[in-house]
Amino acid sequence: MAGCFIVFEGIDGSGKSTQARRTAERLGALSTFEPGDTPLGVELRRLLLHDDAAAPVPTAEALLMAADRAQHVHTLINPALDAGRHVVSDRFSGSTLAYQGYGQGIDLDVLTSVVTFATSGRQPDCTILLDCDLATSKARLGQTKPDRLEALDTAFHERVRNGFLALGAAHQWVIIDSTADLDAVCAAVDAAVDAAVAKTS
Amino acid sequence: MAGCFIVFEGIDGSGKSTQARRTAERLGALSTFEPGDTPLGVELRRLLLHDDAAAPVPTAEALLMAADRAQHVHTLINPALDAGRHVVSDRFSGSTLAYQGYGQGIDLDVLTSVVTFATSGRQPDCTILLDCDLATSKARLGQTKPDRLEALDTAFHERVRNGFLALGAAHQWVIIDSTADLDAVCAAVDAAVDAAVAKTS
Repeated sequence: MAGCFIVFEGIDGSGKSTQARRTAERLGALSTFEPGDTPLGVELRRLLLHDDAAAPVPTAEALLMAADRAQHVHTLINPALDAGRHVVSDRFSGSTLAYQGYGQGIDLDVLTSVVTFATSGRQPDCTILLDCDLATSKARLGQTKPDRLEALDTAFHERVRNGFLALGAAHQWVIIDSTADLDAVCAAVDAAVDAAVAKTS
Repeated sequence: MAGCFIVFEGIDGSGKSTQARRTAERLGALSTFEPGDTPLGVELRRLLLHDDAAAPVPTAEALLMAADRAQHVHTLINPALDAGRHVVSDRFSGSTLAYQGYGQGIDLDVLTSVVTFATSGRQPDCTILLDCDLATSKARLGQTKPDRLEALDTAFHERVRNGFLALGAAHQWVIIDSTADLDAVCAAVDAAVDAAVAKTS
């Protein structure tokens, strides 16, 4: 029996990393993230977010994100799922559509075909979008030095947030208002996760 | 008036790098190559060919080659062509179709759409394929330490060579037998290049 593949999406500061880790722990699942959770991915993450001299043009950025995901799917996610283990990932294909599509303005259909190629069609059993406004995101991120994408302007991040909401509506993601009371957010996440796990087992 | 974009393709040891450099010098063109001729590309070339710990799966390999090309097209090739300068590149999209398509077995149609995305549709005005048999290639490469792709087996390199020939036939490339007498190869290359330059000016 294949494991259940659960993905958390959202802008930085939405609380998705916290919820992803908590969920993985609760399920005894493989906890993973994008970009950068393979040896190749570590190098790509540095090029994507922290190396100004090599900063990619938007098309190269999308292809590097897709390359990171291809390596992630084929060397980590698929083997774990095939071995019957649940997998919880902090970000997946939705992030490419939100950031490079809605954010950077790359055509969504083309981007979808690149992402489908990268994942060989692997899709989450459940995607949970933790939505929050930019002011909350900014307050939560606090004084940490922003990476190259985080440092882009407010209009970019508004497009990304709205892109996530549009994707969530189009693909029946579970959308949770992460500015709500923490207990309520956790309960909503757990209910969505438990339903997905029940459906795949 | 935009410059003329000339590409040399072929297996390693085919003589394409020598002919590309000689042609660029003769035309006063920008001499460039793939993968690895941008600051981002230098890093990607290392990951693609020389970092065993981070060795990409075939899908990631194709996406990294495409990312290198996207950066190459947008930051080097297009600006030079737009400024009216001729550009001579040692490898371009044909190499991805030959190595990752025919060689690694990735679907050619999908690969073509990824490559078209990477280049935003930029195509060479003239592609010259320098063809040679594997024995000649091997003898020319001599004792140099092979990179990750060069180290793949003979059957892989046979598929790549035959892939190049199939692509050349399908896309009206100029195909030159590079095992012929050097003067004859140079003359054939110069004739093809001069015809392409005349057509674009």
